[in-house]
Amino acid sequence: MTTRLDLRAVVFDIGDTLVRAEAPGTPVAELRGEPIGNAIHELRALASRYRIGAVTDTAVMTSHDVRAVLRGTGLAESLEVIVTSVDVGATKPDPRGLRHALYLLGASPAQTLFVGDADCDEGVAAAAGAHFARAGASRSPGDAVRSFLTAQLGPLAASIALVGPLDPDAEAAARYHHDRLTKPRGSLGRIEALGIQLAAIAGAHPPPRPLPAAIAVFAGDHGVVEEEVTVWPQEVTGQMVANFVAGGAAINVLARQLGASVTVIDVGVTTDLGSLVSSDAPQLLRHNVRPGTANLATEPAMSVADAQEALDVGTTVAADLVASGAAALVTGDMGIGNTTPSAALIAAFTGRHAADVTGRGAGIDDHAMAAKVGVIERALARLGTERDPMTVLAELGGLEIAALAGFIIGGASHRVPVVIDGVVADAALLVAAQLCPPATAFAIAGHRSTEPGATAALAHLGLEPLLDLGLRLGEGSGAALALPVIDAAALILQQMSTFDGAGVTTKHP
Amino acid sequence: MTTRLDLRAVVFDIGDTLVRAEAPGTPVAELRGEPIGNAIHELRALASRYRIGAVTDTAVMTSHDVRAVLRGTGLAESLEVIVTSVDVGATKPDPRGLRHALYLLGASPAQTLFVGDADCDEGVAAAAGAHFARAGASRSPGDAVRSFLTAQLGPLAASIALVGPLDPDAEAAARYHHDRLTKPRGSLGRIEALGIQLAAIAGAHPPPRPLPAAIAVFAGDHGVVEEEVTVWPQEVTGQMVANFVAGGAAINVLARQLGASVTVIDVGVTTDLGSLVSSDAPQLLRHNVRPGTANLATEPAMSVADAQEALDVGTTVAADLVASGAAALVTGDMGIGNTTPSAALIAAFTGRHAADVTGRGAGIDDHAMAAKVGVIERALARLGTERDPMTVLAELGGLEIAALAGFIIGGASHRVPVVIDGVVADAALLVAAQLCPPATAFAIAGHRSTEPGATAALAHLGLEPLLDLGLRLGEGSGAALALPVIDAAALILQQMSTFDGAGVTTKHP
Repeated sequence: MTTRLDLRAVVFDIGDTLVRAEAPGTPVAELRGEPIGNAIHELRALASRYRIGAVTDTAVMTSHDVRAVLRGTGLAESLEVIVTSVDVGATKPDPRGLRHALYLLGASPAQTLFVGDADCDEGVAAAAGAHFARAGASRSPGDAVRSFLTAQLGPLAASIALVGPLDPDAEAAARYHHDRLTKPRGSLGRIEALGIQLAAIAGAHPPPRPLPAAIAVFAGDHGVVEEEVTVWPQEVTGQMVANFVAGGAAINVLARQLGASVTVIDVGVTTDLGSLVSSDAPQLLRHNVRPGTANLATEPAMSVADAQEALDVGTTVAADLVASGAAALVTGDMGIGNTTPSAALIAAFTGRHAADVTGRGAGIDDHAMAAKVGVIERALARLGTERDPMTVLAELGGLEIAALAGFIIGGASHRVPVVIDGVVADAALLVAAQLCPPATAFAIAGHRSTEPGATAALAHLGLEPLLDLGLRLGEGSGAALALPVIDAAALILQQMSTFDGAGVTTKHP
Repeated sequence: MTTRLDLRAVVFDIGDTLVRAEAPGTPVAELRGEPIGNAIHELRALASRYRIGAVTDTAVMTSHDVRAVLRGTGLAESLEVIVTSVDVGATKPDPRGLRHALYLLGASPAQTLFVGDADCDEGVAAAAGAHFARAGASRSPGDAVRSFLTAQLGPLAASIALVGPLDPDAEAAARYHHDRLTKPRGSLGRIEALGIQLAAIAGAHPPPRPLPAAIAVFAGDHGVVEEEVTVWPQEVTGQMVANFVAGGAAINVLARQLGASVTVIDVGVTTDLGSLVSSDAPQLLRHNVRPGTANLATEPAMSVADAQEALDVGTTVAADLVASGAAALVTGDMGIGNTTPSAALIAAFTGRHAADVTGRGAGIDDHAMAAKVGVIERALARLGTERDPMTVLAELGGLEIAALAGFIIGGASHRVPVVIDGVVADAALLVAAQLCPPATAFAIAGHRSTEPGATAALAHLGLEPLLDLGLRLGEGSGAALALPVIDAAALILQQMSTFDGAGVTTKHP
């Protein structure tokens, strides 16, 4: 039986791992220290969870010299210790540099991951007894860490480790630029704050457009439908999956308008989809964790292991969509009965009463509404004061809700905006915020669902949705409608003229 | 000196004027009566203002026969009288048929317009002493009437005559269709009502997309700036016109995102634009009515003739943009100081106090705010109880506001949706609603400006804006941001699957 990894420290090689190596013999004064890929943000993210160091083989530079080169790149701030061969009087593959770094960081070799680009780095890790992950020209240091952590702990845990803070420099640059554009300050309202958020998410000013966007519709069934909390038959979940694949649902229409892709993920549909959907439909991903949840009114909706598996599915889908070129992710859901677990989760995580966060979903009468509130009250009573996120999610949640939470964290770890749809996605965002608080900063609430739980969840997270058009459909429809507004926010920062540039007089002092 | 036209009746030839003529000898039972162009809506519009009849030359059909053929086309309902040659024992160019129609309609020849496609029709009109307008294959009967009225009364009056009611059949068809689409009824919220409105505007189900859209930015200056109601220097109006033409303003960025055109119309800029804008810039239309208004704090902002001219400019711009292929019109404005006349107009037409409808525009302090309210109160006091729309517009308005009112009415007369931007456009919409009440039904409020007058104006008209993003820029920016939502509403009705078509079970009965 293997011991679960207890990682405390991550140590990086520098040349061709954190920064592009420069020609041998380049004078120290001319070294630029150009970071590879998104190394700056990756180190910032990791530094909030692990002790971070760097070890480098150089015949001429002390750690002080290296830090001077890295200062201003944004890397030095995240490196708690830097050790060079000069410092310890060694050359690779001698592990003395790494051992010294571990000593300074207070981590054992078994608690340490060493990241390097070369075979000799792997030798150093082996000699020191540390774990090793390979970075390089086509693999940023963060990607190397992600790959290692995914293998050891799973995709969700790896993503959580790589969700970093918003970029304060890009945020400041975008904010400053907005005040120079040819308009009264603040006159573009929320378009301004949104553009600044996009810059802070991407770590770039001006921010990239959120296009192409990828819409992921996670589908699952719910045992709680036997409590008659909905007027729709359960088989509609599977039928709608077929409708998504055929391109006939509302979200398909909105996706075509935006040039966005729609991916449907079966994480827990009860119906056998074999008879409904062609087996080679590329838009349908089959990751059915179990055929529907149990009835949360009387027992846990699923096991913690099921919830973990669904979270991992969502995280992996996010990573795959970003790897395919998605510049923004849109949360979609389909599951007859899924406003009941959503309201239950929202009640648990916001501390509100069931009656205050429960709505009529796809349309129920007073009788069913009373039953729905009663079901949620019973489930909350069973839960008692337990608030461990994984336990709450397993007890009250849904497979598509768990997957959406993983999807949101996955998107945040890749620093793309994640556009949140209605009440089901809002519940998933609450779960994501519990599991990974900094992920919330990468979320953009697209639309205010008419479900009261939606407003409660967003208020709890301090989010204000962009649109309020009275939708209560799910599928990602409200979030998709918000996407052009988000795109406009990026375009304004990319394209508008400044007062100076356009020769427009600014206001009287 | 000519007497101003006092039109009471419009009489139409039928074959190749109202309906496509069919091959001579077609049996009566096989006549289809296919309306030409938008003849149904044009007749409905005209029927609300004029007495309407039709005269036709047929050797075999009585008026009863003709009405039977036209029944079901939507034309018969608007034709108060039908007279055939058989009825009066005559053949064209004998004017007896027309004369009999006038007798039945109670109109004199000088009060009557006869619309036909042939020289013999013109001869009939001449013989009867009636006015004549030429319709035909490339000119719908409404276009013929519009052309005649424009020559006689000007573009605005002609457009007012052609603003008809929403199409109840298309509206009902869209409403019925929405309830068959694969979603819970009503779950697309305002997207559903919006799609139904688009169908009712166009008279077609499913409705056409509102693309391409044309954004018209009307620019004018305001004498009231000498009261220090704004912190921006007046020359900014002209500088921003140059910025629009150069493509660097917010509205240009948003227009490019939408694939929409931006046309800038100088209806009253004070600055000489010659030094700022190339003389051959095609996006700039020069219809300067006067270089800025007078100071409305102390005297009428303009004469009624100036206001009329600006209204006519706006109407003509709308017609030209629709003729160039615009499927939707977007109202834009530029004018330093123009929230002051807007608030004044809103106060006058909604009956609210100046302090309740006045805001901080592009950003003023408490001192300037008090001055602004005081200016509006003085202007309202001068106006007393006068509420004639043209007088109020001339006393309190702005040239770009008058032009926008004409633009809105022009768009409505061509049955395209007119997307209304912020407080300046809201004030113009109030003016349009006064001059032509049915025009409001063709307006879609795009965005709720932060100016309090905007909310007051829209509430007065019973409109709820689609977006509320805190904008206060003008230029058409808020309306442009709403356009993708409007497009989505059309696409949903065009493309979504029905329950039957997608094999999705509907809810439990």
